[in-house]
Amino acid sequence: MTIEGKNEGARPRRIRLGMVGGGQGAFIGGVHRMASRIDDHFELVAGALSSTAEKSKASGAELGLDPDRCYGSFEEMAEKEAAREDGIEAVSIVTPNHVHFAAAKAFLERGIHVICDKPLTSNLEDAKQLQRVAHGADALFILTHNYTGYPMIRQARDMVLGGELGTLRVVQVEYAQDWLTEAAELTGAKQAVWRTDPEKSGAGGATGDIGTHAYNLASFVSGLTLKSLAADLDSFVEGRRVDDNGHVMMRFEGGAKGMLWCSQVAPGNENALKLRVYGAKGGLEWEQENPNHLWFTPFGEPKRLITRNGAGAGHAAARVSRIPGGHPEGYLEAFATIYTEAAAAIRARQSDTPVDPAVTYPTVDDGVKGVAFVAACVESSKKDGAWVSV
Amino acid sequence: MTIEGKNEGARPRRIRLGMVGGGQGAFIGGVHRMASRIDDHFELVAGALSSTAEKSKASGAELGLDPDRCYGSFEEMAEKEAAREDGIEAVSIVTPNHVHFAAAKAFLERGIHVICDKPLTSNLEDAKQLQRVAHGADALFILTHNYTGYPMIRQARDMVLGGELGTLRVVQVEYAQDWLTEAAELTGAKQAVWRTDPEKSGAGGATGDIGTHAYNLASFVSGLTLKSLAADLDSFVEGRRVDDNGHVMMRFEGGAKGMLWCSQVAPGNENALKLRVYGAKGGLEWEQENPNHLWFTPFGEPKRLITRNGAGAGHAAARVSRIPGGHPEGYLEAFATIYTEAAAAIRARQSDTPVDPAVTYPTVDDGVKGVAFVAACVESSKKDGAWVSV
Amino acid sequence: MTIEGKNEGARPRRIRLGMVGGGQGAFIGGVHRMASRIDDHFELVAGALSSTAEKSKASGAELGLDPDRCYGSFEEMAEKEAAREDGIEAVSIVTPNHVHFAAAKAFLERGIHVICDKPLTSNLEDAKQLQRVAHGADALFILTHNYTGYPMIRQARDMVLGGELGTLRVVQVEYAQDWLTEAAELTGAKQAVWRTDPEKSGAGGATGDIGTHAYNLASFVSGLTLKSLAADLDSFVEGRRVDDNGHVMMRFEGGAKGMLWCSQVAPGNENALKLRVYGAKGGLEWEQENPNHLWFTPFGEPKRLITRNGAGAGHAAARVSRIPGGHPEGYLEAFATIYTEAAAAIRARQSDTPVDPAVTYPTVDDGVKGVAFVAACVESSKKDGAWVSV
Amino acid sequence: MTIEGKNEGARPRRIRLGMVGGGQGAFIGGVHRMASRIDDHFELVAGALSSTAEKSKASGAELGLDPDRCYGSFEEMAEKEAAREDGIEAVSIVTPNHVHFAAAKAFLERGIHVICDKPLTSNLEDAKQLQRVAHGADALFILTHNYTGYPMIRQARDMVLGGELGTLRVVQVEYAQDWLTEAAELTGAKQAVWRTDPEKSGAGGATGDIGTHAYNLASFVSGLTLKSLAADLDSFVEGRRVDDNGHVMMRFEGGAKGMLWCSQVAPGNENALKLRVYGAKGGLEWEQENPNHLWFTPFGEPKRLITRNGAGAGHAAARVSRIPGGHPEGYLEAFATIYTEAAAAIRARQSDTPVDPAVTYPTVDDGVKGVAFVAACVESSKKDGAWVSV
Repeated sequence: MTIEGKNEGARPRRIRLGMVGGGQGAFIGGVHRMASRIDDHFELVAGALSSTAEKSKASGAELGLDPDRCYGSFEEMAEKEAAREDGIEAVSIVTPNHVHFAAAKAFLERGIHVICDKPLTSNLEDAKQLQRVAHGADALFILTHNYTGYPMIRQARDMVLGGELGTLRVVQVEYAQDWLTEAAELTGAKQAVWRTDPEKSGAGGATGDIGTHAYNLASFVSGLTLKSLAADLDSFVEGRRVDDNGHVMMRFEGGAKGMLWCSQVAPGNENALKLRVYGAKGGLEWEQENPNHLWFTPFGEPKRLITRNGAGAGHAAARVSRIPGGHPEGYLEAFATIYTEAAAAIRARQSDTPVDPAVTYPTVDDGVKGVAFVAACVESSKKDGAWVSV
Repeated sequence: MTIEGKNEGARPRRIRLGMVGGGQGAFIGGVHRMASRIDDHFELVAGALSSTAEKSKASGAELGLDPDRCYGSFEEMAEKEAAREDGIEAVSIVTPNHVHFAAAKAFLERGIHVICDKPLTSNLEDAKQLQRVAHGADALFILTHNYTGYPMIRQARDMVLGGELGTLRVVQVEYAQDWLTEAAELTGAKQAVWRTDPEKSGAGGATGDIGTHAYNLASFVSGLTLKSLAADLDSFVEGRRVDDNGHVMMRFEGGAKGMLWCSQVAPGNENALKLRVYGAKGGLEWEQENPNHLWFTPFGEPKRLITRNGAGAGHAAARVSRIPGGHPEGYLEAFATIYTEAAAAIRARQSDTPVDPAVTYPTVDDGVKGVAFVAACVESSKKDGAWVSV
Repeated sequence: MTIEGKNEGARPRRIRLGMVGGGQGAFIGGVHRMASRIDDHFELVAGALSSTAEKSKASGAELGLDPDRCYGSFEEMAEKEAAREDGIEAVSIVTPNHVHFAAAKAFLERGIHVICDKPLTSNLEDAKQLQRVAHGADALFILTHNYTGYPMIRQARDMVLGGELGTLRVVQVEYAQDWLTEAAELTGAKQAVWRTDPEKSGAGGATGDIGTHAYNLASFVSGLTLKSLAADLDSFVEGRRVDDNGHVMMRFEGGAKGMLWCSQVAPGNENALKLRVYGAKGGLEWEQENPNHLWFTPFGEPKRLITRNGAGAGHAAARVSRIPGGHPEGYLEAFATIYTEAAAAIRARQSDTPVDPAVTYPTVDDGVKGVAFVAACVESSKKDGAWVSV
Repeated sequence: MTIEGKNEGARPRRIRLGMVGGGQGAFIGGVHRMASRIDDHFELVAGALSSTAEKSKASGAELGLDPDRCYGSFEEMAEKEAAREDGIEAVSIVTPNHVHFAAAKAFLERGIHVICDKPLTSNLEDAKQLQRVAHGADALFILTHNYTGYPMIRQARDMVLGGELGTLRVVQVEYAQDWLTEAAELTGAKQAVWRTDPEKSGAGGATGDIGTHAYNLASFVSGLTLKSLAADLDSFVEGRRVDDNGHVMMRFEGGAKGMLWCSQVAPGNENALKLRVYGAKGGLEWEQENPNHLWFTPFGEPKRLITRNGAGAGHAAARVSRIPGGHPEGYLEAFATIYTEAAAAIRARQSDTPVDPAVTYPTVDDGVKGVAFVAACVESSKKDGAWVSV
């Protein structure tokens, strides 16, 4: 282990960024802004932060934005920024899910790169349409499945793909929360209201909000392709309009099996995202709430603790780490890594040079898979838990 | 917390015990013997420890048994001990599963109390027949689902039944091991050989060996009744004749849902039995490998660590604890509690007095439920993971 | 990892055991009795359990002892048992500390082996005298520093002595409790009363009760010899007559340094005995409350979890383990190991054969060192924390 | 728990920041820059990043600085920036310790606010002189004892000061690392070279580098004033010129006692800063490597886990938290909090308004105490571990 600093390399001009959503009272907008600043590759210069021009300007003032670049709608922002010489080069979309599709489309079609929160869209039809738009656009689409930015997740993926676990057999993933144990949506909590409204959130509740994160993470690390699933979704809280607990069994191509549990009614869990992957030669375990630790057991040997920037961690983790092992990096740094990967990809595109092959970020295709996963869960559950193909 | 000793109360004569199985090379026989000694309620005086009289005598010599009471078969032991004035009052059956039925029957029919290892039998037919025999016998039948003897499991059950968690919603239980990650049965390891032989072990492999423990524990703590399940069982190791990994989704009467995972191919897991129970008012978490700790979260309050004989633990835990909090009791003590509960029940029966209502042990009915669970898992898996009633 | 049973080997006749102390309301007496039964090498047949013949008989009745062998004093027991042909071969002394010396002397001088609770005596003079008696006696003296019986402590010692840590540099040891945070001795709690009474306990309070355990454990694992120390002892609870918190800095021969903290006023600690040992090549960490785990870091490599009977554990641990890894053994099993080692030593002595060199138990010399440690702490503290030689 | 966003309030213009030190190969400079960006209160516009103008410009180019504002020395920067209308308002000093004094003086005397890395200076004389300068200056001095920025440390301090632990009795603090287990300074590792050079680092090695952090943290949370100490410092690695391991016993005003251990030769420790505080009514435990968790035990009740932005956490923690509980904030966020507190203080000073009384940051006085602590440790150790007043 060393605590030497890295030479940071010549730092080009910051990328001009806009934001859709993320006004007062939002949660994820602030996260995106902090994440975009940590590695200093972006500069926020415009926003359609709220649903009216007035609110948007108020929110923009808090962020020090030029009032002329605080817009009342994403359509207006897309149009006007595209027309400016110093217009935004990329946009972060941090609205409720049902807005993702139209907003992303508006920017992609104008050649503005899109960094979009997950899930991709609120339904599979939109997702597939957005996929077509993105593939045809002259702009990049980055989905912020932020957990893929954790260094030890990169380490885990690298070990799996490098064969250190042997042929994979079992994937256990879960994401448990407790904040919807009671009917928070009835007492007006803004996050609870939209996240339990199928019009805004999509047919999946916990499944769409956090199950999709768990599924993405399992896919990212394991490299496995889901073939079919059986799901049992419940709304335990009376009057809730979407699922708040989901149990899923999964079959992957090649024969590996998995279980996924997502819940928002499990008291004692804050953001308990946990992944365990087992193969013929070894096993890995990781927990989001203590993300700098990765447990690796080569079969027949003692369990080992691999730490970020510590002994046992390799290049895949080191290239997305900032500080010495033992000094915890957290959620915001992992999120920042998505932004930094996005910056690398955007700059390569802008300069027409090949992107460093190590650059990794979730794409629109990953987003479609996530929405398809949710749709399959809902379908299976409606069919009384029958197996459905994905 | 106190470290005062308990007054142990007048200690009656030790109960004369025999043992079927548990000769040289066995694992669970030695566990039963240590467990039977810890609280000093039993005295081992006879055995049909091995499959021949000669081997049985050799094993008996190691245990200091009278050679005249080392028998070549359980039938002989049942007959001869029943005829002695100082014959055994109880017998421990610690053979491979397929022998449980006939052995238990032989002793029960002679009025000798039976303490039998789990699972009850190797198939459901035997299980139901044994249930009838046990119900008709003038002797008790105790099944050593030993994990129910852990003090913090008693505490958890007491809290659930007392309503501290509110209506239960979700039960997550798992039992993961790694010792069958490779084909240990091919290299002659005695435990691996019989535990992967469907003739001896039953149709369930991991499901029968450890899944049944997980299911029993979940049932014991939650008090819920299983209604139906969907299971996906696999034999990941080439040539293995029984399942070594099981994924199960469960539906309980009253609407609670559960997931159960059992695996013997999960590198990094020794005996990782974990139970989590969530209700409308709170959640509980417990792990067998650190069994003196129980985590309790009343919804909206900080998570609390309840320790054996520590603050927050109640009478249900204290009556089966031996030493102060912070001095770990382990697997053998939990196992000993089953023996101690058995002794209390046997003595009550012998003296024709009512048994202390706090005395709790797994019965033949629990055993039938366990075997039915395994049978349902196997049936569901054969039907490609379809839901089946239990 | 395997779950095969061990062949237990031919089991000779059980050793006849007496007990001094351990009557109703005692704590440690019951622990000794359970420990003596687990591996079945002893049979309790006599006792001077309480301070009067009547109470002793009452306590003896609870244990099923022959009333004729329940004595009113250890002197009487020593005399009468020594005169019987079937008299006790060994005696467990489990009284308050101030009785240890006279009781041990009475049995040793009659050739009866002594298994004595710690600390050796309540003052250094007695300790040295007992040492002389023991060295001159035709009987063994075993001190129950029970923590040395934990398998992972044996493993740690073996690794240190085998050079896996390189030259030792730093030893951090602590034993924290909280049960004397308030003045429990004023409300009559029996354990609190005698343990805070310098007449019965000795000049050291926390130092003598648990500091001596910590010191012994550090010495046992490190193999280091203490040269000098500086201690700062406090009685934080008003009116307390002995220390309830001790801070100690230690210098060992050869240049290693250490810190020892013992406290009975640290809320949130039950029996938090922790040992950490660091050398030029690696480090070890162990905690009594989770005793089946040993953490080993070879410098520059990932931290490894060595588990009892798991991968990475060697013979030194395996020979004192009973059950598979992942099935926790606890405090009573570690205590039982002291009894089992004692049995091996006693039988070797009885049969005039050499004892297996692997047999290890704390001796009267270790006991003298422990009492000298306490005396030095008290002396240093009286000298305002000055360094004193040991 | 809620995941609602906070309204961030009107955001004034960013404060213009310069930096001394932090060029290529440095570690802590990058940390300061990331920390200064997270909450967006500062804009880096100038630097004397390296020891020559050329290197400084090269480092500045990497950061996108105007070459005209990349200086060859801090003197030049102080002079020229003070003369500019748009000159820096604050400066971060991130050089090796021996430079802190002169650099801080140069800026303070020109009314430029100073944010300085710890320890304050490399010797006590400089520290006291800097204290006088700072007290006399028309500018603020903020010392980046960054661990005081962790939300759960704020929570702990708030609980202690609020009396939830009762009168404090015992403080155990430690900071263990392993990166100097071998003679890294001989192989040219830049961080190891200067940190083990008494000319640059000061007389204390581990004591000055990390012991001072541990001492500051203990003081910050406990509110106690150190009266005297006894220290035993060692240089275990051959040829090392400063201590790499320190053992310290501490006496506080009012009667509380403490132990402090700092080590850079403890294999298996990365940045293991741990604090435990015990009072008459309860205890607290915290570890830097898992900083979102705080363990609180009210005496006689179960231990409770207080989490950042979770149940049980109060306003003191919430005002320095950014994201929901269960999403870990780390080292950079805690560091950012120091910058954000500094910004609040600087803006209040600039606008001549009173600063929010909740604003908390380490001052020059804390810095003097830290250097005095190191000096006392060195003095005590030279006097063979005698007690010395602080």
